[in-house]
Amino acid sequence: MRYKDNADPVITLTSGPVNAYADVLRGLSRTVLYDYDPAFQLFYENVVAKAQKAMRLSTRPVLLQGEPVMGLEAAAASLISSEDVVLNLASGVYGKGFGYWAKRYSPNLLEIETPYNESIDPQAVADMLKKHPEITVVSVCHHDTPSGTINPIDEIGAIVSAHGAYFIVDAVSSFGGMKTHPEDCKADLYVTGPNKCLGAPPGLTMMGVSDRAWARMKANPSAPRASVLSILDWEDAWSHEKPFPFTPSVAEINGLDVALDLYLNEGPEAVWARHALTAKATRAGALAMGLSLWAASEKIASPTTTSIRTPQGVDEAALRQAVRERYGVVFSSGRGETLGKLTRVGHMGPTAQPIYAVAALTALGGALNAMGQKLAVGRGIDAALAVIDADA
Amino acid sequence: MRYKDNADPVITLTSGPVNAYADVLRGLSRTVLYDYDPAFQLFYENVVAKAQKAMRLSTRPVLLQGEPVMGLEAAAASLISSEDVVLNLASGVYGKGFGYWAKRYSPNLLEIETPYNESIDPQAVADMLKKHPEITVVSVCHHDTPSGTINPIDEIGAIVSAHGAYFIVDAVSSFGGMKTHPEDCKADLYVTGPNKCLGAPPGLTMMGVSDRAWARMKANPSAPRASVLSILDWEDAWSHEKPFPFTPSVAEINGLDVALDLYLNEGPEAVWARHALTAKATRAGALAMGLSLWAASEKIASPTTTSIRTPQGVDEAALRQAVRERYGVVFSSGRGETLGKLTRVGHMGPTAQPIYAVAALTALGGALNAMGQKLAVGRGIDAALAVIDADA
Amino acid sequence: MRYKDNADPVITLTSGPVNAYADVLRGLSRTVLYDYDPAFQLFYENVVAKAQKAMRLSTRPVLLQGEPVMGLEAAAASLISSEDVVLNLASGVYGKGFGYWAKRYSPNLLEIETPYNESIDPQAVADMLKKHPEITVVSVCHHDTPSGTINPIDEIGAIVSAHGAYFIVDAVSSFGGMKTHPEDCKADLYVTGPNKCLGAPPGLTMMGVSDRAWARMKANPSAPRASVLSILDWEDAWSHEKPFPFTPSVAEINGLDVALDLYLNEGPEAVWARHALTAKATRAGALAMGLSLWAASEKIASPTTTSIRTPQGVDEAALRQAVRERYGVVFSSGRGETLGKLTRVGHMGPTAQPIYAVAALTALGGALNAMGQKLAVGRGIDAALAVIDADA
Amino acid sequence: MRYKDNADPVITLTSGPVNAYADVLRGLSRTVLYDYDPAFQLFYENVVAKAQKAMRLSTRPVLLQGEPVMGLEAAAASLISSEDVVLNLASGVYGKGFGYWAKRYSPNLLEIETPYNESIDPQAVADMLKKHPEITVVSVCHHDTPSGTINPIDEIGAIVSAHGAYFIVDAVSSFGGMKTHPEDCKADLYVTGPNKCLGAPPGLTMMGVSDRAWARMKANPSAPRASVLSILDWEDAWSHEKPFPFTPSVAEINGLDVALDLYLNEGPEAVWARHALTAKATRAGALAMGLSLWAASEKIASPTTTSIRTPQGVDEAALRQAVRERYGVVFSSGRGETLGKLTRVGHMGPTAQPIYAVAALTALGGALNAMGQKLAVGRGIDAALAVIDADA
Repeated sequence: MRYKDNADPVITLTSGPVNAYADVLRGLSRTVLYDYDPAFQLFYENVVAKAQKAMRLSTRPVLLQGEPVMGLEAAAASLISSEDVVLNLASGVYGKGFGYWAKRYSPNLLEIETPYNESIDPQAVADMLKKHPEITVVSVCHHDTPSGTINPIDEIGAIVSAHGAYFIVDAVSSFGGMKTHPEDCKADLYVTGPNKCLGAPPGLTMMGVSDRAWARMKANPSAPRASVLSILDWEDAWSHEKPFPFTPSVAEINGLDVALDLYLNEGPEAVWARHALTAKATRAGALAMGLSLWAASEKIASPTTTSIRTPQGVDEAALRQAVRERYGVVFSSGRGETLGKLTRVGHMGPTAQPIYAVAALTALGGALNAMGQKLAVGRGIDAALAVIDADA
Repeated sequence: MRYKDNADPVITLTSGPVNAYADVLRGLSRTVLYDYDPAFQLFYENVVAKAQKAMRLSTRPVLLQGEPVMGLEAAAASLISSEDVVLNLASGVYGKGFGYWAKRYSPNLLEIETPYNESIDPQAVADMLKKHPEITVVSVCHHDTPSGTINPIDEIGAIVSAHGAYFIVDAVSSFGGMKTHPEDCKADLYVTGPNKCLGAPPGLTMMGVSDRAWARMKANPSAPRASVLSILDWEDAWSHEKPFPFTPSVAEINGLDVALDLYLNEGPEAVWARHALTAKATRAGALAMGLSLWAASEKIASPTTTSIRTPQGVDEAALRQAVRERYGVVFSSGRGETLGKLTRVGHMGPTAQPIYAVAALTALGGALNAMGQKLAVGRGIDAALAVIDADA
Repeated sequence: MRYKDNADPVITLTSGPVNAYADVLRGLSRTVLYDYDPAFQLFYENVVAKAQKAMRLSTRPVLLQGEPVMGLEAAAASLISSEDVVLNLASGVYGKGFGYWAKRYSPNLLEIETPYNESIDPQAVADMLKKHPEITVVSVCHHDTPSGTINPIDEIGAIVSAHGAYFIVDAVSSFGGMKTHPEDCKADLYVTGPNKCLGAPPGLTMMGVSDRAWARMKANPSAPRASVLSILDWEDAWSHEKPFPFTPSVAEINGLDVALDLYLNEGPEAVWARHALTAKATRAGALAMGLSLWAASEKIASPTTTSIRTPQGVDEAALRQAVRERYGVVFSSGRGETLGKLTRVGHMGPTAQPIYAVAALTALGGALNAMGQKLAVGRGIDAALAVIDADA
Repeated sequence: MRYKDNADPVITLTSGPVNAYADVLRGLSRTVLYDYDPAFQLFYENVVAKAQKAMRLSTRPVLLQGEPVMGLEAAAASLISSEDVVLNLASGVYGKGFGYWAKRYSPNLLEIETPYNESIDPQAVADMLKKHPEITVVSVCHHDTPSGTINPIDEIGAIVSAHGAYFIVDAVSSFGGMKTHPEDCKADLYVTGPNKCLGAPPGLTMMGVSDRAWARMKANPSAPRASVLSILDWEDAWSHEKPFPFTPSVAEINGLDVALDLYLNEGPEAVWARHALTAKATRAGALAMGLSLWAASEKIASPTTTSIRTPQGVDEAALRQAVRERYGVVFSSGRGETLGKLTRVGHMGPTAQPIYAVAALTALGGALNAMGQKLAVGRGIDAALAVIDADA
């Protein structure tokens, strides 16, 4: 049999969007209320409170009505002004990309860049800050998704905080899948969303904003106002007594409400554990069957995405096509620099379950062997199973 | 009994968001596919094709991943440059509001403004264009929702086209509820969304873009690129062979697909007819029970929203609160200039059904009488019924 | 416009099935679990516990996997044996109908029958029991739906209990919409279902079973066993440790769970109140516009269904067709004896909201006037509104 | 980690109920229409037509409003009378079980019984019919689910037909998952349901009824009428012009409609192929890792369920508990005679996808090894993969 392009696959194991939890999908189909209806205003306030709890924030997070790319652009636009000196930390395509936005708002951009299979060394950040006391903003991507690698943002954040710079963190594809919270890393703007590890569809941004970030944005005359790129517009929108600057995405809020309930009810630590275990099993299996990981070390490999280096001579696009056609399984490709060099298996939300590591490894190995590789798939499964069972 | 603030109302009869069609709500809960999955890319291309059919366009419309406020801001940002001379036509709060965005991108702003219960006279536009041949862009709001009034955009568009200016039309709350299409009014950028008369939740923009608008935006160096405000980024996104500039709002696209099917299958003319009849019955009933319409004439009253002038001495917020508490019915308030002066009964998508005119009139009249008015509610119902029956 | 037969109507105001609550509909789409999965077994036990709470029972209710007609047939088959003398109380088509089932299991059938617009007089029951001390089983329909009339089952139950007979009660279309519980009327078998006032779809029976009814059924050798008509088979099915006799209707159980939550969370008294108020407003409106009620007195008119006598010369089927075609509203016809003589407006679950009384009255009056009647519809609405407002 | 009893498992791979297709789950949440609404009556007629098409019947099938156990009991009750001589073919627990129902309606019961891991030999049926020309009814279970074995009903049906007896077939867990249709096996009553290979929830019966079966049931004075066990009551219910004998399970019909669309649109042959391939891969994997199949030969192993013999010394209940706790995977146990002797992996509807064979084998093997077995899990996966790839 062959899975056709125009039919839904069997299992989507990507680094986002992943399919939402079944309960979240049903949440999306709740009644759409008028945004000025008191029932909706109270509901929205409650969703923000749940987001605050999930993000372990002492201040209220902001929900923006668009995918986190909106949140990241809004963060750059709102916090960075032309007088700022920005240090952007780039260990991958997404980290690098933030630099372009930063540069749009300030000409003064410094960067630390690593190979895209490595991660940022906190000491390098400390050194750079020492050398450039004029740095006012530091930006970093926690989980550089196109690489599947993790930066040590808590350590970096402590250094940035000591220096006194503002700290912008892209935690889009890490929050909810591992231990990371805005205040753990002393972030001033911490951008994430429901559409990765929380298992909800794309369409919203969740943002942690420190008190001093609010002050800074208010003092920034070029910070967007009366714009979909404005963070400031939404400062009071959490309150059931205050109007929204424009119509919120009601259905997405309905879905987020369920996603936050699932996360909080299962218990964040339990959620993180199954992300970590699924990734660990995937890595063990991949190595045991003869594949290589993209990440320079397992220590920096993400618990929410496993990037597997494309074997020499293999066309990565053809590989993913074969995986889908043969087994109905969908993986993510690389992006930009990493495109064609790696295949990404996502472990996010509903797919962060160890049994999916087995499905992923079998599909990946099977397709590679069909393309002429000689991988020991069964050995890979045994290795993955050993990891899973060691945790039982 | 009393309907409580924290419980869902019985019937939402607002000018948006209105509740979505039941089928659309279920559509929102479809599986979330990976945006690079061929099944999703083919699906997205197909949704764009349906939108094109619904909008009766000869070119492909663009879907932007945010509420139409994003589309309107993007339109101003993309089409208007500092050398443009913009004529903004303001017959209400939303039309007026667009002028502020226009001014952000060009200092050269002219306006024709009417009282907010009247509509733009095409002759005035013709006169202005004659007087100001330097005008390069004209903008108008078709249905100025906070007023519930309609501007004659097809006539205006013909005049603007003859002049040669670019024409930006906000048809957010009219498209799908009455006969209006981008090419009917020769619009260059025609902004609408699924969250009004198509009966889908807020979260997307549908935009008609003329060939010359594409050319103009490409020639505009300040048109947003690599931004959530960019229209240009999405030019090729309709194609299943091209990547998305960023992750689309998959669930909203799923909902839009169903909304477009419903619209096309019921037949646009039939859909418009029930919007018109519901509005007509509401107006007749309101007048017969002793209320006044906000619109200066029935001719310019919207078929998708009926604005009823608040009787002297009545606190409009208290009125809507009473309507909700007593009957579980929710109406829209005015906005800005019209706030406190009128109450709006929406007839959009699933609520554009004449029987809801009866519910609306009874709830409105009942609450007003409870506040001391002396309205002949029954007489209003008889009048509404006469309108409905005349059509049967 | 004309609503077509093959398209969904706008509002269904029937005496069942009515549309389910939106939350219940979404509940139906929960994951279908394996019936032996411990998660499902625990869930099922919990649903039974909620049903017990809603029914205010001191014993566990039984869920049967079919519409209440299954429950009623099972009740007759399980409790009545050939040696029983059954007194069936018939004030309508459904009450009368139970007699046919009773007779299938015992030849000894006595009946008290009233005209189908009246109700059973408890004194008549007392007299009959005195005259026939050999009576062992009494059966009654609480709300005889085809008539829309209520029998005083609590009073009757006290008399039956004093006599010592077993008491079988059909409370299918009353439970959840007014104050009635198995132990209030001392029922031995009390049959109801989620598909009327609980606002869930048809497909399940909820049954209260007294301890002595369990004993009696066990002692009855002809009580069905290993059959879909068996009550006995399900005695222990509530327990998560016991198997089901056959596969339960998982999706219906999922829906019932939500329906019970809605009922218990809103508060039974509040739910009953809105049923009562909607019916009262409907009756007042109907009378004021010139119609007659079917029930001999308002005292016995059901709070969950209003039966309106068909005016002389009107074809009742044509009337309902006109109501649907013109206004998109659906009512129930009569059944059997009452077919053609009355039209029923249901007030059940999600439709037990006073504003729907207004819609119903307008649609009914409008259609009748279109058929040549001269009803004062507006006056009817004023009267209905007066009832609603008196309660506010 | 440990999957808890009170939380949903990750993957349900049982022999039913299995989780429904996502589209079917959403279908269940469609608006509940009044059963006398013309829209519903037309819809119901259309669903019956789709069922007829799926069952490749020249006559209209009957839908009964309960799980197939209702259909089987109704079949026995309706077709078998005390004068019949019934030959029941028992190759497993379900086949054997039908004999008890047969005996309830006729004392004259003959049986051919095989060991429960074997299947009925058509020659034995021919011999028995020759020896007992008085046999008037033959009954058989196609896929005896507790064994996971298939009887050759097409061959048997040809023999029964030549003899002239009525043929009752239980195809509950085979129809939709392999090539079987009522007229292929010349069945007079062919009982199946949507809750196995069609991927819908339990709650309905689909029944093929031959013309002569209708005649026979009508002639049978003891065939149930005015009963939930009646087939006769439903003869005309398919027609939009005829009333239902009692309220149908509207939501289940809504779900069935979607399930039939999915089946017909994917193509029955394609659906059967993925059932067969999943089962074949599961068998190959199980054997390769060192397990034994329950079925005496692969030829009679069901394509919709793989029964794996419990290794000596293993507690089968503890095994399934370990599979669920460790991997979040749920399998079916045996039933009756086969309980404790085998574990069943279902391949039905949405789970009939080869990649689930991999998940099943890993979970089964992993749990057994944790219980002290020495299975070569990886070798099993390689073998399963070889089967899947051979088909690609």
